[in-house]
Amino acid sequence: MTKEEIQKQITQAVETVRRANPLVGSITNTVTINLVANAQLAVGGSAAMVYLPDEGEFLVKAAGAAYINVGTLLPIYEETLPHVAKVLHETGKPWVLDPVAVGIGTLRTQLLQQFKAYKPAVIRGNASEIIALAGLWGLDGGTARSKVRGVDSTDPVTAAKTAAVALAKWTGGAVAVSGKTDLITDGAVLAFSYGGSHFMPKITGAGCSLGGVVAVYATAAPPFIAALTATAVFNLAGKRAEKRAQGPGSFQTLLLDELYKATAVEIANNPFEIEEV
Amino acid sequence: MTKEEIQKQITQAVETVRRANPLVGSITNTVTINLVANAQLAVGGSAAMVYLPDEGEFLVKAAGAAYINVGTLLPIYEETLPHVAKVLHETGKPWVLDPVAVGIGTLRTQLLQQFKAYKPAVIRGNASEIIALAGLWGLDGGTARSKVRGVDSTDPVTAAKTAAVALAKWTGGAVAVSGKTDLITDGAVLAFSYGGSHFMPKITGAGCSLGGVVAVYATAAPPFIAALTATAVFNLAGKRAEKRAQGPGSFQTLLLDELYKATAVEIANNPFEIEEV
Amino acid sequence: MTKEEIQKQITQAVETVRRANPLVGSITNTVTINLVANAQLAVGGSAAMVYLPDEGEFLVKAAGAAYINVGTLLPIYEETLPHVAKVLHETGKPWVLDPVAVGIGTLRTQLLQQFKAYKPAVIRGNASEIIALAGLWGLDGGTARSKVRGVDSTDPVTAAKTAAVALAKWTGGAVAVSGKTDLITDGAVLAFSYGGSHFMPKITGAGCSLGGVVAVYATAAPPFIAALTATAVFNLAGKRAEKRAQGPGSFQTLLLDELYKATAVEIANNPFEIEEV
Repeated sequence: MTKEEIQKQITQAVETVRRANPLVGSITNTVTINLVANAQLAVGGSAAMVYLPDEGEFLVKAAGAAYINVGTLLPIYEETLPHVAKVLHETGKPWVLDPVAVGIGTLRTQLLQQFKAYKPAVIRGNASEIIALAGLWGLDGGTARSKVRGVDSTDPVTAAKTAAVALAKWTGGAVAVSGKTDLITDGAVLAFSYGGSHFMPKITGAGCSLGGVVAVYATAAPPFIAALTATAVFNLAGKRAEKRAQGPGSFQTLLLDELYKATAVEIANNPFEIEEV
Repeated sequence: MTKEEIQKQITQAVETVRRANPLVGSITNTVTINLVANAQLAVGGSAAMVYLPDEGEFLVKAAGAAYINVGTLLPIYEETLPHVAKVLHETGKPWVLDPVAVGIGTLRTQLLQQFKAYKPAVIRGNASEIIALAGLWGLDGGTARSKVRGVDSTDPVTAAKTAAVALAKWTGGAVAVSGKTDLITDGAVLAFSYGGSHFMPKITGAGCSLGGVVAVYATAAPPFIAALTATAVFNLAGKRAEKRAQGPGSFQTLLLDELYKATAVEIANNPFEIEEV
Repeated sequence: MTKEEIQKQITQAVETVRRANPLVGSITNTVTINLVANAQLAVGGSAAMVYLPDEGEFLVKAAGAAYINVGTLLPIYEETLPHVAKVLHETGKPWVLDPVAVGIGTLRTQLLQQFKAYKPAVIRGNASEIIALAGLWGLDGGTARSKVRGVDSTDPVTAAKTAAVALAKWTGGAVAVSGKTDLITDGAVLAFSYGGSHFMPKITGAGCSLGGVVAVYATAAPPFIAALTATAVFNLAGKRAEKRAQGPGSFQTLLLDELYKATAVEIANNPFEIEEV
């Protein structure tokens, strides 16, 4: 694919979502669940969140895609998450995995191991999470021991390149590594997306809401394009929001405004580079 | 009641709430729980949220009214919600039911069926939810099969008129159907409330926070007036917020500001029409 | 300590946090969890939240301090909270207790009783909560019967002076009583911190986010200084935010901006008075 072909697909993804208002089902952490929903709505999607196994099944069957974020696990997740991931896999529905804080706790480790078989269309995380997940799944570029600190990365994005490529090859989908420059790969091509803001790590949920928006675009585009489109609109909106923000409070408000206002052409033209793996 | 009599009661409800700072207990979804609380505070109420059965009982006994929203059910809700609804019914305390996503999952269906006997003072939902709830309760205007899509309505407000009237007659309270023009009925009179904003469906929780605010006014006015007052202040605040909003982020911020700033007279004068059923 | 010595320590606490970006683990209510995290990030900390026992243990061992808020208890808290508090006590790690709505429900009472042995470094609450907790722990100044109404105080700050001193003497840490003028004590010295805004009680989570920020500073300063620093930055940011706020929505946005912008010297110079107990 040339850069122009990618930009054309990004434009189509954005326009399709704005026109179709696709439903995305999410199971996500309680810290940033509101921002995830609002970001999904801002780009043109419809958001619904649940916790119970049968509700999760119903929701993802009705939805065009799903977002699963393991941030704040509750006991019921032991039942809900593998069941919903299995349904998603069996119905061939794209889903986005956010392996937040991989390495913390036994249930989190168990769930993330189970997800290996259910092949998420897109995995989105920071560099340390991507490296740790590859390690957990026994893939190239992973480490046996997570270097995740709470929800923060201790590794630069480029350090996760091998892990990201290995994960994408395993799932047959795409991986998005979030950081100063974002890395998106389908295992064959690497895209580097530019923009964003120094305020991004100063608000909670910039990464989660990005993951939720990847799922919105996954209803309308292949995994790699969905991940790149979501990353582009966040980089664009973040850059614009920063210009008028006076701190992280106004930045978050403006970020939602700019996610809403960004046009398909502007998103497609947000700076990015591609190279072969 | 004439329009003037209704406006007088709206004015009184708003002023009583601002003076008395009434406590409202809520059991509501994790997606919009923060906005519900902030909206309740903005109009002059006091907000408290719980999950456990005995805490729910304690809270609603201490509160002037309650708000129950079945958005994101947790396993403990199987115990908490029927217990709390029963206490509310037995103590004759007004409560507001938000039957979010009725039709999804077995627990949700079971709980909403149980609520029929505990007669909420106000039921607030979108048109599809109101129609589906009437169907679940075997009342006029209901359908056997929910047309709810996630949390969205697929029906226009007017399509829920028969169901809303039937539900209000059953409970002896009021029903508020949210949409472009809002419909409020006590089973005998229909009120149509105007205003709001195209940004309302672009933020998560416009409906939930409206439901939470209905409960605040239910501490100070009969169900029909409480529902109409809450709808009026949201329509007024939404219209005003839209004028200065640059997107859904700033709209939500401004909505809370305008809920806070709206005076009793302005709320009573927000455009509405009444007709006999 | 003279006032100048206290101001020097406040300055150091603020600067250390901004430089070190310390991780704080929190178990807190779902209503204000997002604001807690955003406030912790705004002052320079890193925030992570969990619910499960082993994750709580892992998190607080990795973190520099912890924040425990009993606002919206879930069933798993019966297991998680005593375990995590015990780990915190055994590892000598500072933790902040927010005894929200003490007196409501059996689990809440049971947990707060257990916490007595695990001596939180800082207890933060409104006057009624501090008085009720002292009563629950059988200390001076407490009452057998909680006068907490939902999450609100029905007592003035000064009424909690004896209880606050007794709690601080018991824990060997500090107590912060939030109200119009905030009272902070280590059992020997009383500090009164001024500022804030009439909008503080008009948003949900002003107290919770203050508690979360106390935990951030507790990674870098002794309990009394941590509590005073956090109170000072909230009083300063609240006062500044109020000047430009048009209501509670914009106030919350501006509050986060001002928490972020406040300098160490400005925080240290926020008006306060000290006296011997």
